[in-house]
Amino acid sequence: MNTLSPQPLTAQAFAPFGDVLDATGDFRLINDGFCQRHHDLAQVDTGGSKTGISIFQAQPRALPYRFDLIERHPEGSQAFIPMTQHPFLVIVALNTTSQPVAFLTNGAQGINLHRGTWHGVLTPLHAPGLFAVVDRIGTTTNLEEYRYPSAFTVLG
Amino acid sequence: MNTLSPQPLTAQAFAPFGDVLDATGDFRLINDGFCQRHHDLAQVDTGGSKTGISIFQAQPRALPYRFDLIERHPEGSQAFIPMTQHPFLVIVALNTTSQPVAFLTNGAQGINLHRGTWHGVLTPLHAPGLFAVVDRIGTTTNLEEYRYPSAFTVLG
Repeated sequence: MNTLSPQPLTAQAFAPFGDVLDATGDFRLINDGFCQRHHDLAQVDTGGSKTGISIFQAQPRALPYRFDLIERHPEGSQAFIPMTQHPFLVIVALNTTSQPVAFLTNGAQGINLHRGTWHGVLTPLHAPGLFAVVDRIGTTTNLEEYRYPSAFTVLG
Repeated sequence: MNTLSPQPLTAQAFAPFGDVLDATGDFRLINDGFCQRHHDLAQVDTGGSKTGISIFQAQPRALPYRFDLIERHPEGSQAFIPMTQHPFLVIVALNTTSQPVAFLTNGAQGINLHRGTWHGVLTPLHAPGLFAVVDRIGTTTNLEEYRYPSAFTVLG
């Protein structure tokens, strides 16, 4: 049976796929010391095209979560910033022949998928599934999909 | 006495200053109908320089809130996306001689300040004051400050 156990999202484990966006690590103090700026955490790469901000409102899913589809955007990176403090599920894969990997955020983390990274669709686990998304704005399709021959299940 | 009453943040009222980033208005259904994409809501303008994502962790403030400083970034827009569902205070001004305006978000809104918009420092009203910020990454100062001759107070 194709099962995955979600692991805690860390910058080190996620490095092959993208960036973790959180308030850990180095920062600059700004605004008279009232604010920490954790500076420039994402490899935003929209290939020279416009970079935009969209808002996604996704229906929450539940664990165990079954999926057989992954996708990627060959023309640009894609950042998902939760507008809630709820953990969400992140599914990524190095390629279509390797085992996918499931991560669970800690409720104070966004992610930036590097350009071309295979990933599952947006999977909040709690309502409202509200995210800001920073990605390439363009007129081309910028989407490839792959369906696994048999489904995977992310365990709860 | 220089007092301001915060008004609800709406796209119409905020239009002279920037964009409201929320899940209202038109959308495209993606991910087999599981997700609404409210597409390309912000005028991201970093003047040809790199656009980056940073994480700000700001100390919460309380109302009434007294301020005499506003600032602007002449070289780029700046988006603030709350990573919580807490309302936050937004102070903006058309110019240094006009009365500043205070808005209160509804807990499901981010903002994008247009390039050059005068604004107060980041003012969450609840902990954690955690925001993703999309702005210009560069080596120049990209900051102008103005101090009012007498302070304003935003009423609670």
